[in-house]
Amino acid sequence: MISQQEHFKKACRVLPGGVNSSTRVNKAIQMPLYVAKGKGSKITGIDGKEYIDMCCAHGAGLLGNAHPAINEAMKKAMETGYVNAFETVYHEELASYVVNTVACADKVRFCSSGSEATLHLIRACRAYTGKKKIIRVEGHFHGYHEMIYIGGHPPVFDFPRNRIKPYIESAGIPKEFADLIIPVPFNDKDYLEETIKKHGKETALLILEPINFNCAGIRADNDYLQLVRKLTEENNIVLFFDEIQSAYKKSFQAAQNELCVIPDVTTVGKSIGGGLPLSAFCGKKEIMDCYAPLGNVQHSGTFNAHLIPVLSGLAFMHTASDPEFYLKLGKLEKQFHEGINKIIEEYDLNMIVPNYGARFNILLGRKTPARNYEETFCHDNKVFLLILKECILNGVYFHDYGGGPSHHGYSVQHSEEDIVYVLEVLKNAILKYRKNINGSII
Amino acid sequence: MISQQEHFKKACRVLPGGVNSSTRVNKAIQMPLYVAKGKGSKITGIDGKEYIDMCCAHGAGLLGNAHPAINEAMKKAMETGYVNAFETVYHEELASYVVNTVACADKVRFCSSGSEATLHLIRACRAYTGKKKIIRVEGHFHGYHEMIYIGGHPPVFDFPRNRIKPYIESAGIPKEFADLIIPVPFNDKDYLEETIKKHGKETALLILEPINFNCAGIRADNDYLQLVRKLTEENNIVLFFDEIQSAYKKSFQAAQNELCVIPDVTTVGKSIGGGLPLSAFCGKKEIMDCYAPLGNVQHSGTFNAHLIPVLSGLAFMHTASDPEFYLKLGKLEKQFHEGINKIIEEYDLNMIVPNYGARFNILLGRKTPARNYEETFCHDNKVFLLILKECILNGVYFHDYGGGPSHHGYSVQHSEEDIVYVLEVLKNAILKYRKNINGSII
Repeated sequence: MISQQEHFKKACRVLPGGVNSSTRVNKAIQMPLYVAKGKGSKITGIDGKEYIDMCCAHGAGLLGNAHPAINEAMKKAMETGYVNAFETVYHEELASYVVNTVACADKVRFCSSGSEATLHLIRACRAYTGKKKIIRVEGHFHGYHEMIYIGGHPPVFDFPRNRIKPYIESAGIPKEFADLIIPVPFNDKDYLEETIKKHGKETALLILEPINFNCAGIRADNDYLQLVRKLTEENNIVLFFDEIQSAYKKSFQAAQNELCVIPDVTTVGKSIGGGLPLSAFCGKKEIMDCYAPLGNVQHSGTFNAHLIPVLSGLAFMHTASDPEFYLKLGKLEKQFHEGINKIIEEYDLNMIVPNYGARFNILLGRKTPARNYEETFCHDNKVFLLILKECILNGVYFHDYGGGPSHHGYSVQHSEEDIVYVLEVLKNAILKYRKNINGSII
Repeated sequence: MISQQEHFKKACRVLPGGVNSSTRVNKAIQMPLYVAKGKGSKITGIDGKEYIDMCCAHGAGLLGNAHPAINEAMKKAMETGYVNAFETVYHEELASYVVNTVACADKVRFCSSGSEATLHLIRACRAYTGKKKIIRVEGHFHGYHEMIYIGGHPPVFDFPRNRIKPYIESAGIPKEFADLIIPVPFNDKDYLEETIKKHGKETALLILEPINFNCAGIRADNDYLQLVRKLTEENNIVLFFDEIQSAYKKSFQAAQNELCVIPDVTTVGKSIGGGLPLSAFCGKKEIMDCYAPLGNVQHSGTFNAHLIPVLSGLAFMHTASDPEFYLKLGKLEKQFHEGINKIIEEYDLNMIVPNYGARFNILLGRKTPARNYEETFCHDNKVFLLILKECILNGVYFHDYGGGPSHHGYSVQHSEEDIVYVLEVLKNAILKYRKNINGSII
């Protein structure tokens, strides 16, 4: 058996940073966790140490590890010989599930990652409108590519400049791409009206997360969403909801169905593949029909909608459409949030744990929900990382992505006992590292 | 049992064009082939009709359908519970295989698709050089995204304009991005020298396919490649070989190893995943170390290097590193090309079938290899599509991507009998549709 540290060294020789995804390095432990096995709610490190999994594949693991339905899907895939790069009847079946559960979806296409989904859908929005600029909301995240990895999470010290010169979030992205991005603050109706008045004629799309999982789980105010819908419609701007994280998290549908604000197009990912690499983009017929061979927007790729993830996606749909599924998740949600809120109250902690269904954020430094990116600057990430590290040392794996108050969650295979244990460990970690932030005890 | 046509109609209701990849519509039959099963060298349509598979997942299916090694990999994945979004010891093991078989690779990262691989690697090239323009070669293909889906395959009627105003290959790509692309003709040393003299200072990378599988299988002249290497080195331009298609096609290494021209960075895909969604990008340490957390180039994604494709990739490596593997493929190659060349000679056909290992192109209208994109304009695609359709009607599935003389191939599970049958069907189809092209009979 090799230790985590030993394997880290070995991996670093051939993989930059020892990982295949930069954010797979958990900032709380300053290295990745190398894993040997997953089962239900648990993961086991290569050193044999077991953890309750509160990362859940960054939200893709709503079924938990090694779910029987996914095992069955893989057996079925073996029987078919997987027939790579061909369409099957299962593709249409899965597409129909998306059309029936995502309000805006007349048609859909599948690909492998969330980043691919937003990339391809942005292209269609531009082709459809004949315009090219993108209005995006600060604090929201839509993938690691040049189209949109700009202006989302500017550094705190230089934050106001983001509105004049959108912050480029990775080296190697030319400024030409930033010139096409218009960042706006979340939930600010006046700013939005002004922006659309000024830039509506050159704006192809307005993209947002209806629940801002990538920054403190901030909810859109309902009247803000209504205004977004009204102004985009009036100005021939495609309204794009990025529901990669929010779809199927709370119920067997997209968040838009519940919010009663229907965008023109939507990306769906994470949970949808049952833990395998699958994402989707969908929307109104007239926009989706821009894709070749119907229109002249290209969306191709050998591995798009590979049969194994498609069968796994169908297994997810069959499993999650059973009413018991969200009842179980709802019970865990109730238990977890009643528990954590009780701790916050009992110790008068200056923090909140907003959630949407089975996924939540932890925001330190305030007792009321933040309404925009700026309002999350109270979050003390140093303290937060100490808390997460303490949890990991005590057998509860929380992931930190390196930014601010990001998301965590549980799966349908987590038990009441798991939640009890997680709450106990989290409470002890918080109490160990509570300190003054903004004049209050966290 | 549902017919192909019936299912096509049904799929078109929820999937634009009835597919999840625009080029999955086979232009030869004006629709996709919906498939129920794959086994070895054969695929079976949803209507029960069987075909010899000469598409082989566009090159990803070098192992053929339902290879026992991949079934074993999937069983292993089930045992581990797949542990999505975590690194394992298998990731390092697979990375080491790449480092040992791709000459330029000091380090490597994995992702899901070839398009993702070129996207992420282009970003690092830009960050590393601090420059942003891209020199690319006409006729070459490097993925379906805004960084590079420009200037590769301009339409014949308007082709010379590509050098002044690079042709945007999909609607929805803003013209700002085309301003970053500098297309050059393949194998033209003078043009290259002029271009680098003029644009070297602003050019971050020069990207090419060492074997131009995406246009008539054109080979780079050795002195051209030598010059490319020399000029890029002298001008601080990263030399980028796109070996998504060429790596592991002929032997257990990248084409660069055999060509003895070593680029700075390389993308590898298709075969590497054993038929599952996996690609890689690799290169010199100093460039790969630009990725976070070592450098400030972001490369992240929940599904990067998912354990199932990684285990499948390892199964490919174990299988392909057995000396018998390429001996078997080499025998099929000899049989196929001796056979097709005999037919060409016997009937004095005006066509060639260039290849590199187990993958080949069919170019109509000339008897000598083309040396650049322009020299392939003799290819009569209408005749070609009639030939492919005839093959499909007779149980041999060739795919057409909608462009010119693209690639086809066989797998290690194809048999001598399969090749005999394919040659017979292909011969009859060619003879049925031969007609005057450029004054010669094809």
